Amino acid sequence: MKFSCRRTDLLDAVNISERAVASKSTMVILEGLFIEAKDNEVRFLGNNLELCIDCSIPAKIESKGSCVVKANIFSDAVKKLPSHIDEVFIEVNESNVIFISCGNAKFNFSTTSADEFPRPQEINAIDEISIKEYILKNMIRQTVYAIAQNDTKPYLTGILFDVKNGELSVVGCDGYRLAIRKEALEHASSLKFIMQGKTARELLSLLGETDLEVNIKINEKQAQLTLKNCTVTTRLVDGEYLNYEGVAKHENTLYIVTETKEIADSVDRAALIANEAVKAHVLLKIEDGQVNINCETVLGQVKDKFEVNMQGDPIEIAFNPRYLLEAFKNADCKEIKLSFSTALNPVIIQPAEGDSFRYIVLPVRLH
Amino acid sequence: MKFSCRRTDLLDAVNISERAVASKSTMVILEGLFIEAKDNEVRFLGNNLELCIDCSIPAKIESKGSCVVKANIFSDAVKKLPSHIDEVFIEVNESNVIFISCGNAKFNFSTTSADEFPRPQEINAIDEISIKEYILKNMIRQTVYAIAQNDTKPYLTGILFDVKNGELSVVGCDGYRLAIRKEALEHASSLKFIMQGKTARELLSLLGETDLEVNIKINEKQAQLTLKNCTVTTRLVDGEYLNYEGVAKHENTLYIVTETKEIADSVDRAALIANEAVKAHVLLKIEDGQVNINCETVLGQVKDKFEVNMQGDPIEIAFNPRYLLEAFKNADCKEIKLSFSTALNPVIIQPAEGDSFRYIVLPVRLH
Repeated sequence: MKFSCRRTDLLDAVNISERAVASKSTMVILEGLFIEAKDNEVRFLGNNLELCIDCSIPAKIESKGSCVVKANIFSDAVKKLPSHIDEVFIEVNESNVIFISCGNAKFNFSTTSADEFPRPQEINAIDEISIKEYILKNMIRQTVYAIAQNDTKPYLTGILFDVKNGELSVVGCDGYRLAIRKEALEHASSLKFIMQGKTARELLSLLGETDLEVNIKINEKQAQLTLKNCTVTTRLVDGEYLNYEGVAKHENTLYIVTETKEIADSVDRAALIANEAVKAHVLLKIEDGQVNINCETVLGQVKDKFEVNMQGDPIEIAFNPRYLLEAFKNADCKEIKLSFSTALNPVIIQPAEGDSFRYIVLPVRLH
Repeated sequence: MKFSCRRTDLLDAVNISERAVASKSTMVILEGLFIEAKDNEVRFLGNNLELCIDCSIPAKIESKGSCVVKANIFSDAVKKLPSHIDEVFIEVNESNVIFISCGNAKFNFSTTSADEFPRPQEINAIDEISIKEYILKNMIRQTVYAIAQNDTKPYLTGILFDVKNGELSVVGCDGYRLAIRKEALEHASSLKFIMQGKTARELLSLLGETDLEVNIKINEKQAQLTLKNCTVTTRLVDGEYLNYEGVAKHENTLYIVTETKEIADSVDRAALIANEAVKAHVLLKIEDGQVNINCETVLGQVKDKFEVNMQGDPIEIAFNPRYLLEAFKNADCKEIKLSFSTALNPVIIQPAEGDSFRYIVLPVRLH
């Protein structure tokens, strides 16, 4: 294998593909980065068996071939190449030593054979959708925070993509709260799959803010996303998702509209003494056009209040402050609407205008 | 105790004084922040017995008094006060509960009695110096990196201040390298003291870039620094410092002048495969107007070279790359001069022009 390419292209490809390299694995080869010189391009591949990122860059190929390099050393070397030089030469000799040369800087390390490295299979797609990059990024960001970190129900650790009736819903849920984010999407048939939470978080880093279309191909086991500069293949979460549309169907008796920042700051203040060690709740008392927030623990007490636009009956209801704060933080709108029924029923948080998202948070039972 | 003050003043005072609060101590009271309402001002005091920071702000005092609050809760509360409100009311009642009120936000916590809290003693100064804030900051920054993290010789964990012959020298040394930074300072007598490394690092955060004078008072055991907005009292390190002026008195036989960034980048690249786990050295071969840098470990090899302005005999000499890199990073000048004698004698790193600093680094013995 012997090729030359632009230093900046190489840097981009390594930065992207190394995201899928296993940091520690019983299969040592998965801690490596696969490199393959093909016709006019070089392919970089990281694969931890859950997630595979495949990234190709243009290159002048002198001889084809492939190898697997230790990802951390190769990546550090590429990042430290002299920044005023634009061309990098890479060669692997017969003893499997890789030579990297850029201006006067020369690196060499041993590599391992690429034979054992697992390549992603071409997906035999049973369906596919396309969605603008910035919208997909937004939909993931506004739901993935609500999933469970680990759970005996694997589907709670992923986000659901649900396409039907001209709409895509992305849903995250940990059993105590549920986030639904909707966008119009024309698609002939219905389609449902659950993406792993880890993959969703990696996509947040990989996706940009452009309106380029991202293509998502699906089969029974895997999803394959084609982004501008790489292809991401990932295993799907097995199993049925919960019937999220059936949640919180109760009738609401109180509606308030408030500035997102105002309620977020107030709850954040109250949360100060309700930290993990204590696991306290914040109490919201809503009456006479005013929200009174109160939090009391062995450490002390915090109180706050603010005026709101209110319609309906007064209520006293308690929440885990973190659940509220994460919803407010990801709401992305200046004003939000909260709908309540009883102190035992979940609150529904939505934008003041429109229905692009819907967050449902279970209250803390007080008595 | 009852007073009101500006929210921003309070925030500044807490941010500064909490730096000296003990994060964990067998004396629980040292994890607290001492607050005292006096005539027209409120004093905040953090004291971990090694370092004490004393900070006063103007306030409207309704009744005098003092208390000790849990530093982390009080500090979080102050940081989360509503940012559009400028005035904060603070009161401690007879049951030792503190009430903080700012707009609609109200906090209350329990406090403890201030009787047990150790106040810093007025220093009975035997000598004092004054030095501009930005210069002091610079002198500390350019020497403190060279001290030992922990050592059986306590003086190696501090920095020496040495005033004599119209000059202040600040010196850091860990036994393998030595950093000396000099500035002109008119002072009638000689003066020597060793400041603790921890205190020196805190001062880096506290000191600004102005040319206001910082006054340093000294007695046998302590130093007291009067900064613009606080007073810092700190224990000194006992013992005699090494005779740093006697170090590296050998005759040099090779001088090179090079761009700091060029040699720093090259050594950094070579250091890539000489990480902690491996503890390798980088080899510098200087001949024919060229520096050849080489590093070889079980992981692989890195080579680099660049042209230099060179005078004297060629040399081959090896170093711990971290020692060189930290010197280059703190050199603060575009071009530096390196002076060598034999492969067993230390290198001397200085600015290409002037002699404001002098770094001496022992080489690694190759054979």
